[in-house]
Amino acid sequence: MTGMLTIAGLGPGDAALITPEVSAALTEATDVVGYAPYLARVPSREGLRLHASDNRMELARATEALRLAFEGRRVVLVSSGDPGVFAMAAAVFEVLEAAPEWKDLSIRVLPGVTAMLAAAARAGAPLGHDFCAINLSDNLKPWPVIEKRLRLAAAADFAIAIYNPRSKGRPDGFARALDILKDAGCGERTVIFAHAVTTPKERIETLPLRQARAEMADMATLVIVGNSTTRRVGRWVYAPRRAS
Amino acid sequence: MTGMLTIAGLGPGDAALITPEVSAALTEATDVVGYAPYLARVPSREGLRLHASDNRMELARATEALRLAFEGRRVVLVSSGDPGVFAMAAAVFEVLEAAPEWKDLSIRVLPGVTAMLAAAARAGAPLGHDFCAINLSDNLKPWPVIEKRLRLAAAADFAIAIYNPRSKGRPDGFARALDILKDAGCGERTVIFAHAVTTPKERIETLPLRQARAEMADMATLVIVGNSTTRRVGRWVYAPRRAS
Repeated sequence: MTGMLTIAGLGPGDAALITPEVSAALTEATDVVGYAPYLARVPSREGLRLHASDNRMELARATEALRLAFEGRRVVLVSSGDPGVFAMAAAVFEVLEAAPEWKDLSIRVLPGVTAMLAAAARAGAPLGHDFCAINLSDNLKPWPVIEKRLRLAAAADFAIAIYNPRSKGRPDGFARALDILKDAGCGERTVIFAHAVTTPKERIETLPLRQARAEMADMATLVIVGNSTTRRVGRWVYAPRRAS
Repeated sequence: MTGMLTIAGLGPGDAALITPEVSAALTEATDVVGYAPYLARVPSREGLRLHASDNRMELARATEALRLAFEGRRVVLVSSGDPGVFAMAAAVFEVLEAAPEWKDLSIRVLPGVTAMLAAAARAGAPLGHDFCAINLSDNLKPWPVIEKRLRLAAAADFAIAIYNPRSKGRPDGFARALDILKDAGCGERTVIFAHAVTTPKERIETLPLRQARAEMADMATLVIVGNSTTRRVGRWVYAPRRAS
């Protein structure tokens, strides 16, 4: 048997958002590797081996997935959302670069619906115009880089999707991010807090940025800050296509 | 019958990337509205009415979809990719804002795999770190806004996904964009040209930005400019998770 590694995105939560391409890969897999809560979303089947790991163990998880594929298994490494957006694909290529013995392994990346697209759809169309996506975790980048990007994103008048705004280990960064954005003149912009989007615990909250409090976000929240022209119509929020 | 408007994304091209949620909506529809090439991707069925329109007629198309739903039809308005990213959702809310008689209509937005995610998956993980998405069409925004955003995106060291880089009606903007990025010190960055991604005509080209020529892109091309740390390993391109 020839081994293969498929790096796949399960979408934001609802099984109806898993692409048929990813479902087919899971059907053909011998092994699925991933963070335990994501593995719980994979349909179980006789003979399918599940390899659960803790969060934050990205490189170990990537290494295990590559090793299993090198041994001849058909491995799917699962991420939530899209595997290429603040998820496992980059970790795999990082490991691959340091392990030339695996360089000829068959690898493919299957895209998925990343959280900001699902959150935007629930809210209306806040990403209908130019936008950026910033991971607020400073585990792997210095905080000043995050701060600089927030300021430049505000100056560029991008809508801003904020991933991983806040966790128990990083309780303060998001409050600083809100202060930076207020400071940059974004106080009147519309902010969307999309909590656990497309799951039974989904909760969407929309308010002006000056009223936003850091406690409104946790690790299951995707935050979208509208641009300066973002408008509300009824319960919907959208970025007009025309910019001045 | 109660009318309803579903704004749905068909993904980048391959039917295996249409979410089950969108497929179900198409199965239940009485009418599908969209730009003709996208309608061609909808499975035909007895009794299903297809309403084709030309490109660039976004507001007319949105109005027709809302009107049909208001008349009691179950309408799906289709976009390529994700409907909220440089596509039809924003146009619908723009029309809705100007037509209060439709404000109580039942509307939902169903996300899809937008082109940059599919392009990134083919290339590796160039969007694995902070990034932005810029629509290069200046039909609805002044060119200086685009230029300013490109410069700030380069300063922020975002990876940059460029939608609609070039068309017959706008042959010159992309060449100017490349010059701006070179001028901003991005000449050594890796650029990915993803042409007709996930279709039989797919073609992926990766090269340093200083070697890129505007003619490499057309309207079926999604361009991704890596950030300053983006690396190549074998045929793959990825943004390391660690930034300095």
